[in-house]
Amino acid sequence: MANLVTLTTDFGDSQGCVGIMKGVMACINLNVKFIDMAHDIPSHDVFHAAFVLKTAYRYFPEGTVHLAVVDPGVGGSRRPIAVRTDRYYFVGPDNGLFTYIYGENEFDAREITEAKYTLGVDSTTFDGRDIFAPVAAYLSLGVSIEQFGQEMSDPVRLDIYRPEYGKGLIKGHVIHIDQFGNLITDIERDESEQVMDFRDVRIRAGDLVIETVSGAYSDGPPGEPVCVWGSHGHLEVAVSQGRAVDSMEGMDRGAEVFVQANE
Amino acid sequence: MANLVTLTTDFGDSQGCVGIMKGVMACINLNVKFIDMAHDIPSHDVFHAAFVLKTAYRYFPEGTVHLAVVDPGVGGSRRPIAVRTDRYYFVGPDNGLFTYIYGENEFDAREITEAKYTLGVDSTTFDGRDIFAPVAAYLSLGVSIEQFGQEMSDPVRLDIYRPEYGKGLIKGHVIHIDQFGNLITDIERDESEQVMDFRDVRIRAGDLVIETVSGAYSDGPPGEPVCVWGSHGHLEVAVSQGRAVDSMEGMDRGAEVFVQANE
Amino acid sequence: MANLVTLTTDFGDSQGCVGIMKGVMACINLNVKFIDMAHDIPSHDVFHAAFVLKTAYRYFPEGTVHLAVVDPGVGGSRRPIAVRTDRYYFVGPDNGLFTYIYGENEFDAREITEAKYTLGVDSTTFDGRDIFAPVAAYLSLGVSIEQFGQEMSDPVRLDIYRPEYGKGLIKGHVIHIDQFGNLITDIERDESEQVMDFRDVRIRAGDLVIETVSGAYSDGPPGEPVCVWGSHGHLEVAVSQGRAVDSMEGMDRGAEVFVQANE
Repeated sequence: MANLVTLTTDFGDSQGCVGIMKGVMACINLNVKFIDMAHDIPSHDVFHAAFVLKTAYRYFPEGTVHLAVVDPGVGGSRRPIAVRTDRYYFVGPDNGLFTYIYGENEFDAREITEAKYTLGVDSTTFDGRDIFAPVAAYLSLGVSIEQFGQEMSDPVRLDIYRPEYGKGLIKGHVIHIDQFGNLITDIERDESEQVMDFRDVRIRAGDLVIETVSGAYSDGPPGEPVCVWGSHGHLEVAVSQGRAVDSMEGMDRGAEVFVQANE
Repeated sequence: MANLVTLTTDFGDSQGCVGIMKGVMACINLNVKFIDMAHDIPSHDVFHAAFVLKTAYRYFPEGTVHLAVVDPGVGGSRRPIAVRTDRYYFVGPDNGLFTYIYGENEFDAREITEAKYTLGVDSTTFDGRDIFAPVAAYLSLGVSIEQFGQEMSDPVRLDIYRPEYGKGLIKGHVIHIDQFGNLITDIERDESEQVMDFRDVRIRAGDLVIETVSGAYSDGPPGEPVCVWGSHGHLEVAVSQGRAVDSMEGMDRGAEVFVQANE
Repeated sequence: MANLVTLTTDFGDSQGCVGIMKGVMACINLNVKFIDMAHDIPSHDVFHAAFVLKTAYRYFPEGTVHLAVVDPGVGGSRRPIAVRTDRYYFVGPDNGLFTYIYGENEFDAREITEAKYTLGVDSTTFDGRDIFAPVAAYLSLGVSIEQFGQEMSDPVRLDIYRPEYGKGLIKGHVIHIDQFGNLITDIERDESEQVMDFRDVRIRAGDLVIETVSGAYSDGPPGEPVCVWGSHGHLEVAVSQGRAVDSMEGMDRGAEVFVQANE
């Protein structure tokens, strides 16, 4: 086992919630090592967290447990879930956080029902502490995923946008906005380059037309919009030394972006 | 020893102060492991930090050192303090940060005066680096608390609100606001259920009357106020998928909350 | 080796970027330990990050690798750099982040060109993941700095202000603003006390005249400006229980501060 647990939450850094989850895990596995993935996920934004997990999970050692708690439905009927893929484990609420993981991997998903692997506390508002942290710690110790509960064939998947890769025209969407205000689309490089020669395209995002894909955010003069293939292989709309999301009206998550091959 | 040190500060994450404290500790005990509890405590808000420590300290392995630096009086006459309870250690300024710890535990408190366990730097503005971090590191190494200085019989305690549990009427106060804007009161579940049947109560908070204690924040339609027993056993006033603190005028820390048994 | 890597970035805590860098390092050196220095550096503010590194790097065990990624020119022509001083290593973009390190140490700087120590990913927008994290991990494993590339004699240095220590008059500048809004100047204690007796001086900052250097931020009544020798040995202008930067118009980075000896 890697003994590694990553943590992705919307808990911020003012309340001690992440610390408490780590304390719970350290009580179960004193050798566990923690890597914080993100704790300033916008409150209750499952889509944002799902995208962060998509871009990050592959960069960790085999056996890493990815614990994610963005959980607007805590205490309600949504199920707690543990998932095993070929190389990793995922633990959190079954609300779509792992949508991209399911799309990219074979997986075994379990509804967490085995009480002996949870804290057994009479509380319904902090499952991160009471259920997800202990399960992650037991997974990091090598407890087999079958031990936590029955297989689920139907874990919740978010209703995510789907890009359309047509001959000469790609239609995509802004699916994420990063800390620099860059607009990240669902247009992926590998698929795109199969339908189009990107040396001669026009990209349309809102009122904006961009004529080239640059190699760096800093290409072009400050304040000018640029398109780049971002670090996760997605087409991004950025503003050189600025924040695209603030300077382009209406370009929020869901906004359409088009790539058109020139004649 | 657990070799574990938690850190609770108002230092934020832009200045390197927390990193410096960890570096100082790593120089003294290279095997020390750190768990960040909270670093976005509102500046100088000792009450907030005291509540975070109250809710968190029990979830850590025996021997854990809880280091807390929210220290508006740094460089002044307030004393540096190290505290031992049955299972844990606490280090920080003697300004009331550990008020709840004293209330819930037998303890041995020491004024830190032994210079050989501090950095001995000629500075008066960063005792976190110069005094508290080294003392925490030496505690994590197993140095006995008696070594740091004389016993103090009178550590500073905050003037905290006290709820009144009457037959048929409980009077409490908002004592904390969490990252989701939930109002956490000092009304505790165990005491409350001894004086009242919570299946038939009315809760009054400002202009608001709530007729039931829900099982989850997400009970009731979005935007509606709900009461829940929070994860720390305190009665909370929340707004389903919203922020109670923003939608309820005047309900800041100190505001009164009443629970009345129906006839 | 200390097996210790510190991280200083402007990546915030909402995107998973810091987590990804740690995952990359853990894949190369599973025993590496991480200490977060600062991740809320203002976006692209190389001056801010350089100051944080200056104040922090000395407090870590020998052999610590200081990884810093504040990188507005990512993907452009700026070079990736690895630096060795007597006790530490530094890795990041060659944009001046290590200006103060060069000024205070003998050093060996290398342009990172050896592809086998990088991820070899076809991306130009996240060198933190693809170049700097792997190089830091290999340094933490003990790979010699000569292995990463050719020596650079001319690493980029920021154009930083220089204080003037005259007989009876010191002229300095605000070079940093900390999380409490304190104005930190480039006037250093050791140099200052050689040209002046600080028991009898007048300090002028904007419209303000302060007649004494206090021992603590909390000296003087709330809201009053005070001067202190800060924890890094620099003269600071603060407001007791307030934020100097918000109450003193025009006192931003670069503003002049004068210390005059009284007759």
